[in-house]
Amino acid sequence: MGDTRKLAELTGPQTLEVLGDDSILVVPIGAIEHHGPHLPLVTDALTAESVATAAVSAAVAAGLDVWQLPTISVGKSDEHHWASGTLWLRAETLLDTLVDLGRSVAATPARKLVFLNGHGGNVAMLGVALREIRRHFGLMTFAMPAMRVPDEGPELGAADEEGIGIHGGWAETSIVLHLRPDLVRTDRLVRNVPAGLGAWEQLGFNGKPVAFGWLSDDFGPLGIVGDATTASADAGKRIFEHSTDEAVAALGEIDRFELPPRTRLS
Amino acid sequence: MGDTRKLAELTGPQTLEVLGDDSILVVPIGAIEHHGPHLPLVTDALTAESVATAAVSAAVAAGLDVWQLPTISVGKSDEHHWASGTLWLRAETLLDTLVDLGRSVAATPARKLVFLNGHGGNVAMLGVALREIRRHFGLMTFAMPAMRVPDEGPELGAADEEGIGIHGGWAETSIVLHLRPDLVRTDRLVRNVPAGLGAWEQLGFNGKPVAFGWLSDDFGPLGIVGDATTASADAGKRIFEHSTDEAVAALGEIDRFELPPRTRLS
Amino acid sequence: MGDTRKLAELTGPQTLEVLGDDSILVVPIGAIEHHGPHLPLVTDALTAESVATAAVSAAVAAGLDVWQLPTISVGKSDEHHWASGTLWLRAETLLDTLVDLGRSVAATPARKLVFLNGHGGNVAMLGVALREIRRHFGLMTFAMPAMRVPDEGPELGAADEEGIGIHGGWAETSIVLHLRPDLVRTDRLVRNVPAGLGAWEQLGFNGKPVAFGWLSDDFGPLGIVGDATTASADAGKRIFEHSTDEAVAALGEIDRFELPPRTRLS
Amino acid sequence: MGDTRKLAELTGPQTLEVLGDDSILVVPIGAIEHHGPHLPLVTDALTAESVATAAVSAAVAAGLDVWQLPTISVGKSDEHHWASGTLWLRAETLLDTLVDLGRSVAATPARKLVFLNGHGGNVAMLGVALREIRRHFGLMTFAMPAMRVPDEGPELGAADEEGIGIHGGWAETSIVLHLRPDLVRTDRLVRNVPAGLGAWEQLGFNGKPVAFGWLSDDFGPLGIVGDATTASADAGKRIFEHSTDEAVAALGEIDRFELPPRTRLS
Amino acid sequence: MGDTRKLAELTGPQTLEVLGDDSILVVPIGAIEHHGPHLPLVTDALTAESVATAAVSAAVAAGLDVWQLPTISVGKSDEHHWASGTLWLRAETLLDTLVDLGRSVAATPARKLVFLNGHGGNVAMLGVALREIRRHFGLMTFAMPAMRVPDEGPELGAADEEGIGIHGGWAETSIVLHLRPDLVRTDRLVRNVPAGLGAWEQLGFNGKPVAFGWLSDDFGPLGIVGDATTASADAGKRIFEHSTDEAVAALGEIDRFELPPRTRLS
Amino acid sequence: MGDTRKLAELTGPQTLEVLGDDSILVVPIGAIEHHGPHLPLVTDALTAESVATAAVSAAVAAGLDVWQLPTISVGKSDEHHWASGTLWLRAETLLDTLVDLGRSVAATPARKLVFLNGHGGNVAMLGVALREIRRHFGLMTFAMPAMRVPDEGPELGAADEEGIGIHGGWAETSIVLHLRPDLVRTDRLVRNVPAGLGAWEQLGFNGKPVAFGWLSDDFGPLGIVGDATTASADAGKRIFEHSTDEAVAALGEIDRFELPPRTRLS
Repeated sequence: MGDTRKLAELTGPQTLEVLGDDSILVVPIGAIEHHGPHLPLVTDALTAESVATAAVSAAVAAGLDVWQLPTISVGKSDEHHWASGTLWLRAETLLDTLVDLGRSVAATPARKLVFLNGHGGNVAMLGVALREIRRHFGLMTFAMPAMRVPDEGPELGAADEEGIGIHGGWAETSIVLHLRPDLVRTDRLVRNVPAGLGAWEQLGFNGKPVAFGWLSDDFGPLGIVGDATTASADAGKRIFEHSTDEAVAALGEIDRFELPPRTRLS
Repeated sequence: MGDTRKLAELTGPQTLEVLGDDSILVVPIGAIEHHGPHLPLVTDALTAESVATAAVSAAVAAGLDVWQLPTISVGKSDEHHWASGTLWLRAETLLDTLVDLGRSVAATPARKLVFLNGHGGNVAMLGVALREIRRHFGLMTFAMPAMRVPDEGPELGAADEEGIGIHGGWAETSIVLHLRPDLVRTDRLVRNVPAGLGAWEQLGFNGKPVAFGWLSDDFGPLGIVGDATTASADAGKRIFEHSTDEAVAALGEIDRFELPPRTRLS
Repeated sequence: MGDTRKLAELTGPQTLEVLGDDSILVVPIGAIEHHGPHLPLVTDALTAESVATAAVSAAVAAGLDVWQLPTISVGKSDEHHWASGTLWLRAETLLDTLVDLGRSVAATPARKLVFLNGHGGNVAMLGVALREIRRHFGLMTFAMPAMRVPDEGPELGAADEEGIGIHGGWAETSIVLHLRPDLVRTDRLVRNVPAGLGAWEQLGFNGKPVAFGWLSDDFGPLGIVGDATTASADAGKRIFEHSTDEAVAALGEIDRFELPPRTRLS
Repeated sequence: MGDTRKLAELTGPQTLEVLGDDSILVVPIGAIEHHGPHLPLVTDALTAESVATAAVSAAVAAGLDVWQLPTISVGKSDEHHWASGTLWLRAETLLDTLVDLGRSVAATPARKLVFLNGHGGNVAMLGVALREIRRHFGLMTFAMPAMRVPDEGPELGAADEEGIGIHGGWAETSIVLHLRPDLVRTDRLVRNVPAGLGAWEQLGFNGKPVAFGWLSDDFGPLGIVGDATTASADAGKRIFEHSTDEAVAALGEIDRFELPPRTRLS
Repeated sequence: MGDTRKLAELTGPQTLEVLGDDSILVVPIGAIEHHGPHLPLVTDALTAESVATAAVSAAVAAGLDVWQLPTISVGKSDEHHWASGTLWLRAETLLDTLVDLGRSVAATPARKLVFLNGHGGNVAMLGVALREIRRHFGLMTFAMPAMRVPDEGPELGAADEEGIGIHGGWAETSIVLHLRPDLVRTDRLVRNVPAGLGAWEQLGFNGKPVAFGWLSDDFGPLGIVGDATTASADAGKRIFEHSTDEAVAALGEIDRFELPPRTRLS
Repeated sequence: MGDTRKLAELTGPQTLEVLGDDSILVVPIGAIEHHGPHLPLVTDALTAESVATAAVSAAVAAGLDVWQLPTISVGKSDEHHWASGTLWLRAETLLDTLVDLGRSVAATPARKLVFLNGHGGNVAMLGVALREIRRHFGLMTFAMPAMRVPDEGPELGAADEEGIGIHGGWAETSIVLHLRPDLVRTDRLVRNVPAGLGAWEQLGFNGKPVAFGWLSDDFGPLGIVGDATTASADAGKRIFEHSTDEAVAALGEIDRFELPPRTRLS
């Protein structure tokens, strides 16, 4: 049990010994959802857990007091609810799950809780939960994306994605080709980039000012948006390493971040 | 009743006549919350409603089939729950309110529902609601910020805000000075820019990759983050007009945006 | 900001200055719902807000410490859920909204909260909420109808309504003809008085001992119960003024009403 | 099993035989709550069940197709939550209970559901439930008070109650003296009539236009409002018989009442 | 009121006098549900209440401080939701009901709460509620079956039930033949023992390691599992007396059982 | 991807190919909770997942069409809520999670869903969920314990546990010593067997007729009930292998078990 950084591998009383005000607890959260005919359902959970494990290890090596909690595999994937194999929580269930987790963590000595998130569909409710947990239990709460695509100048791999390779495309396929190549059906790599969707100025996916409520079959029966045909394990390796580096950098800032402690009853 | 674009000023049967598949319904949503010692509680609701009214009018003049619904004045302002005067809905209540509204709209002939949002604390739950409403009722759903600060090169007014003038600072104070100068206590303009908060690379407010769960008194007793001392009605006018222009542009894209119709029962 | 009695036009800190134990906060609550082919959807919200504004003004002039909160426009209109244009909250959502409002108000120095209600469908849940808010937050809570029809001896206008002009009939049409004549389609005034419904001794609308669960299309496709054809702006003026007078009288009693203070945590 | 009118004493398949579109199901609903030092906790449940049993019997004798369901003993008594012995459901629990009952009844051939209510604190949520059940399940729904005090000219017994003998006073004490004299502690009959409360014009208990949210200890530690000292078994007998007569009259109207059938899915 | 052990027959203040730390409150809980063509809907509620009444009486005679609360007649009978006459609470409603009851009891001086349960479908949620009530309100909580079939060596009556006479079979029919023979349709006694179901080693009803989610019409249209044709009032008498004896024995152990008191706020 | 039996490692479309009416989906469910000073928090999740993996593999080898879903690590551990390190879902959250999972699985071709449960605190709500999922979605649903202690005549290891080694005692410690000896703090093995608790006839843990609501600190500060001091890896190996064998036998019965298909909408 000596060197583990998996908190659940400790005993309860050990958590009282090893955790303190400055300890950072990291919860990987992903999804089990349709990712097209080429990627496994587990893609987002795999990515979140893999980045978390690598980042926690590196952060500890760098002297940070970081601990990893069990992965929340199933998230809010209602946009893929139509697809066989998708496991999803309703919005309320995910919020309750996150708040319950916050209540649980508040019983440990740790005060910093970080969600490392592998699924875009979780982002909004994580945003809600961060504040709920802070308000109810006084924890400092954080959420960050598991996958960070490096800025490689002309992003060759994603060249044909028109900036909207958000699900099952170049980046996700590449990272799974790196992490678990056996789980990618390379004979079925597909491309689905809805014409014109990337060209809107106001409306679009992440980063555009106008958000919209979409289901993944709004863009055709493949249920993906992106181009998997240009993915490669090499690109996946670069993405994974960059993601890990950024996560470690983020944990460093979280470690240095301070706010007045709060303790309010739920 | 001839020229109104307030949907609630029509009769029920008239909505069957004037609305169709291409009609766009705009719901302003704001907040009634503490905005420091200088700004009124109504700031966000006022901004959302004012921009909505101007944008709907301009969009209609430009030939779009746009209608305005009653403003949701009270939003999710739990970050200001500690402050007298803040009226706030819990996360679940806001989600239920938005989904109920979507259910109601689904009984009209309109298929496009837009939330024009004046309060940052509503963004996350709006993101959840967009998808809930699309999945349950088949509507096309959109959300966009009411306030859009123009990019004026060196943003003189916000110069001292270190990029984090998110609540009660230069932009909000300016826009209220423009819209309702009688509601600004210009004798109590304050500045509260937490040292260093804008300098983090990973962690921060909107736009930084690491989100965090904050309450407005985490940054001191003033309950604002920004610099109101440099605000001006002129800047407010520019912000308001830019916000309106952008909202009109967004409505134009929404008008042209098409997805296959869905009708699923709740 | 000097003379406003709109609480949301104050700053947060001002609410600490101007409010005290004896302050009375008035929340207009209405509905956006089908009112037949002649009346606007906004009828109930319009009535509640108009009476509230007039009554608050008069009460303040009479020396009472009364403040107006933003109108809750959308209420529980499930009886009109079938009609295009109706916006409605489910029962649970309305209760949560009211309780959340009570929680918010409990953070101000005021102890008296009044709902001025323009929609019959809200009455029952308001009754529930009054007690919830008192029990959870210790406020003194009140609810009263916005519209009070004066007793004019032989009620000529409502003569043909058999005492059941409860929705879209003489009184409501008259009051809108007074407040916003531009919103009444006088070319479509209709009458729908279900034969015999007023003649029951036990069973009926307000005032009869046996309540029943009705939807507005239970009484035919018009969705109203009453006679709009005899409405007039003059009658509307009398109703409006009487409603305001009664509201002021009620606020006077509320001002003098005292119960031991309670403060319980939610 | 021949003559029973207790529906629960039938077998399931028998309900298919004996019930039809015109059958009326009566659910007594009461409360188990503090009623002062002289009346039993069961007062309201006892009253509701006793009146229901007598009224169903009389209605059947008069040729109506009426059936009695099991009594809901515990209701919404949050106003007495402070008092040992009160058993109470939260508002949401009562609503869920009533809606679940409606869902259950919708699986029988009966279409008319009547709540005979012995507790004022249930009235508001019953009002909500009547409409929920009609909207969700298409049943015709009714609610009526179990206790009806006859108009005896100078109401001698209640003479000192100033019209507000709403809880534990002359009428309730009398009816229990009639139904179960062994359960009345006649050595502890008390009077608690808050000075002036009956004199308000606007504000007050049932019948006054301004409702307020009260807890029973708002009026002193006795937890009653009324005058038990003048109660008598004779008066109780008259009240009980009048209540039964009125309930039978109401069931007659309900029997003749018709609305178009609805069947909507929940 | 002298000798009653029905708590609801006391006044509120009396509960403060007669109850103490060692008092045991017994709540019978049953069901109103389809029991085949021969047994009344009330079977489970009748059994629970009858055993409770007998056991409380005997326990008091034996010197225990035991009190009976009103019966919860309607339980979680979703497995019979398809059958006319079944009245059922959804899972959430039953849990809320039980927790609300626990909250109510926590306001009395008693610390021990016992559910005497006549319906198998309630068992799981009772298990949940016992812990909820202990955790929230600090009560000591217990649940036990109302019906206990004596071990009579070769269980002649149930000989043909293959050990799975769980609903509407020999034991239930016998006990109703004993308690209320007028409610049994002896001309319609039936047998439905699904072939082979009792022969599984792993999978089966109570007692087998693998539980499964069944609805009562999974086993054919009769909606029972068991053999009513061999039932007798004599067997019912033996079962009833044994059930009562066991309940008394259980109350004796509950009386002697001690845990450290807890008081946590909900 | 060839031989995996982890469903989440397939693509969505593959699930349509490999799953059919006879496919069995196995969900391990455990807990992350205090297990005394010697066992890791992950004990129950580890046990469930390990037995599931071994059993699925063996069942597939035996020709069954069985697939493993991601483990639900966090369960209902409210009995350990007081202990640092316990992660727990509230009762409602667990029920929602299970029902959401059932809804998800209903979108695949599989019709049989099995929960392999490593934590006693999950049993009751699993029982509720099995029926909810069957009623709402028509699946055949099953739950079984992950750990099955072989009947070894005189159970030497558990000799001192008086039959109540339910948490952190001989069996659990032994199985973790077998599966992950590095996670057992063998220097802190403890014994806590509440005197007399095993001697009750009516009242007790699993198997006794009277259930009670306990928290793990009801039995002292160690938070365990059992005797870890006699645990051994050898015993753990026997328990693990027996558990796997029994799970395979159960899957065999589940494979052969048939009920009429149902499809009801939620």
